[in-house]
Amino acid sequence: MSFHSMWAELLPVGRGSASGGYRRFAWTGADAECRAWFQAQAESRGLRYEVDRNGNQWAWLGDPADGDAVVTGSHLDSVPDGGAFDGPLGVVSAFAALDELRARDTRLRKPFGIVNFGDEEGARFGLACVGSRLTAGQLTREQAHRLTDGDGITLPRAMEAAGYDPDAIGPDPHRLARIGAFVELHVEQGRALDLSGDRVGIASAIWPHGRWRFDFRGEANHAGTTRLADRRDPMLSYAETVLAARREARLAGAVATFGKITVEPNGVNAIPSLVRGWLDSRAEDQDGLDRVVGGIEKAARECAEAHGVDLDVVRESFTPVVEFDHALRDELARILGKDPDRDSGLKVPVLGTGAGHDAGILSGSIPTAMLFVRNPTGVSHSPAEFAAEDDCVAGVLALADVVEGLACT
Amino acid sequence: MSFHSMWAELLPVGRGSASGGYRRFAWTGADAECRAWFQAQAESRGLRYEVDRNGNQWAWLGDPADGDAVVTGSHLDSVPDGGAFDGPLGVVSAFAALDELRARDTRLRKPFGIVNFGDEEGARFGLACVGSRLTAGQLTREQAHRLTDGDGITLPRAMEAAGYDPDAIGPDPHRLARIGAFVELHVEQGRALDLSGDRVGIASAIWPHGRWRFDFRGEANHAGTTRLADRRDPMLSYAETVLAARREARLAGAVATFGKITVEPNGVNAIPSLVRGWLDSRAEDQDGLDRVVGGIEKAARECAEAHGVDLDVVRESFTPVVEFDHALRDELARILGKDPDRDSGLKVPVLGTGAGHDAGILSGSIPTAMLFVRNPTGVSHSPAEFAAEDDCVAGVLALADVVEGLACT
Repeated sequence: MSFHSMWAELLPVGRGSASGGYRRFAWTGADAECRAWFQAQAESRGLRYEVDRNGNQWAWLGDPADGDAVVTGSHLDSVPDGGAFDGPLGVVSAFAALDELRARDTRLRKPFGIVNFGDEEGARFGLACVGSRLTAGQLTREQAHRLTDGDGITLPRAMEAAGYDPDAIGPDPHRLARIGAFVELHVEQGRALDLSGDRVGIASAIWPHGRWRFDFRGEANHAGTTRLADRRDPMLSYAETVLAARREARLAGAVATFGKITVEPNGVNAIPSLVRGWLDSRAEDQDGLDRVVGGIEKAARECAEAHGVDLDVVRESFTPVVEFDHALRDELARILGKDPDRDSGLKVPVLGTGAGHDAGILSGSIPTAMLFVRNPTGVSHSPAEFAAEDDCVAGVLALADVVEGLACT
Repeated sequence: MSFHSMWAELLPVGRGSASGGYRRFAWTGADAECRAWFQAQAESRGLRYEVDRNGNQWAWLGDPADGDAVVTGSHLDSVPDGGAFDGPLGVVSAFAALDELRARDTRLRKPFGIVNFGDEEGARFGLACVGSRLTAGQLTREQAHRLTDGDGITLPRAMEAAGYDPDAIGPDPHRLARIGAFVELHVEQGRALDLSGDRVGIASAIWPHGRWRFDFRGEANHAGTTRLADRRDPMLSYAETVLAARREARLAGAVATFGKITVEPNGVNAIPSLVRGWLDSRAEDQDGLDRVVGGIEKAARECAEAHGVDLDVVRESFTPVVEFDHALRDELARILGKDPDRDSGLKVPVLGTGAGHDAGILSGSIPTAMLFVRNPTGVSHSPAEFAAEDDCVAGVLALADVVEGLACT
């Protein structure tokens, strides 16, 4: 099955008819459809299919017990109204790269695996990379069991409803110990490759990033009859904090975004009692991130106090800077070739990214690397997310070269 | 059944266990429970119970066909996480006033009715006073049929599911023509009575007020990887508009509130594509209101343009200033007595209000008046909404006096 056919098969799964965006959330029907697709792809290629204790899917050529396996893959879930490429491109490209290697009659000397990590986006339970975090021991079963979605459904209940055993989840060090290299291919979520004119790039590092929940608590009251002076309106503090976030990020050359909000009671004629806003912030280094988030929190506390509003700030998740394994990164650069005419001397550019990935999580346990495929608009996490098919095919060939280079030595 | 017992019976209906607030939305199970309670109260007093074409409930003593009926009542539905008093106090007090008149052996010469208007708060379908608007011909069947709740359920489907006929709805001029006076008792939604030290007051006018929907449309994108300069983030324009609303309202001595918001896709790591905020604004007169809303819209357009965000502003509802019938207002003041020691010469104060009411809607068709009961904190549309039982009883006695005064002449 060609890249094009695999892509076409996945395209309608979990796609909203109104927005054209995807809603492939963990342990939902759309997620199950994606998983069935993965299993069918694995089996149609004669790969050994398995699901690990955390619900991540694996497809194996050769026996991973032999060790030093080369693994590639990504995730199939999406953010709310997400695009088609973020995640699926890495999984589809993995199968397509294997097809390419078979067409080349390449003989792999090491076990080769393709993986689909569960719940990478964290769209449903608010924590990203749940599948890889559990596997790497960066999230305990107890912590995972406390995760709850917007409808009050806990992660264990959701897993159970999808036919998985939530009591089995936990760290999987033996599985990771058998992997010599994990390479994740991903659509670029910015315009660096477009600006440099390259189809494919290699990741250097992932910016440190985190999510903070700001709970502004005021007093619900009638919007028509309560004097301005008598109000404790948390929406005002929220609004000032949104603007402070943009200001602090601009000053630090970082990014800071309030993209999610819930309001109680959320009635047109009611002053809110609670405005809960989520901050996503990332910066090139830890100092910069601390400065941005510290500045936002300070501004939020000042305006909350001025409005008689209580403020709680909770860090919901955090990932420190991830420097990808230098040796593996250099090996990828070597495999993908030299270009003496470029300053770097490399055929492909090496670039940092603000986005978190399963590869970032796993980099604490095993050597990991990432390949990026050009995104002509830089748009991501949106129905408009796009990569040209030519560039996707270039990504598949680069991934095939990398697997060949790593697994045939 | 005493005021106290009626109150205790209604208290648990539709109350959220977490917030302690009420969620008695039109045509839901909680609404049906309130309606069953109303019917039982009517029947236990030997009143003739009927439901009109718009789902409003009526309980009659005497034959309304005789004309010049005196009617009192209010509504039983609530805003999201609303209080116990806004609405129910007027209905419970109506039954209690009848009990008081019977205890006094008062013989009413005119038909007397108690009414529960449906969907006063508009919490579910976004439009307030649907029951009285339909009856007064201020909302057409076609307009009502287009109303849709947050889950995409249309008003006709909701009515049908609750056992009512949505095709029957429409104006009811003959019913209104039989009513000589409508008096709505309501908990005050401000602190005027508390400040003046009175238990009960008479309404003079309702400020002009309306609801406007601000749709800020930008571009969804990845919150971690999209450069600030490449963003079209509608949350920033929304935030600036929230602050502009407070500023404009303060300058004009009016009120303006953004209490409801929906965001798409509402993901922590996604720049929103759409932020939809609802403005509620009210002012003492039309000029003031125009100035406030015009100022807010101007500020919103300027910051939307600065952020590359598209803005649509839609007026979803509007009610011009309501001056309650002067003759009926004076009659109420006469009935409730004189106090030569007060500047007004009246025993009870006469006060304006920023809140809309069914009485305001009906005032375009029939003579209407309102009584307010003291609210010691002024808090309303909140679980903390409160009136002391002594004050409620004073309200019942005043209402009984008013009905006696109007119906025995």
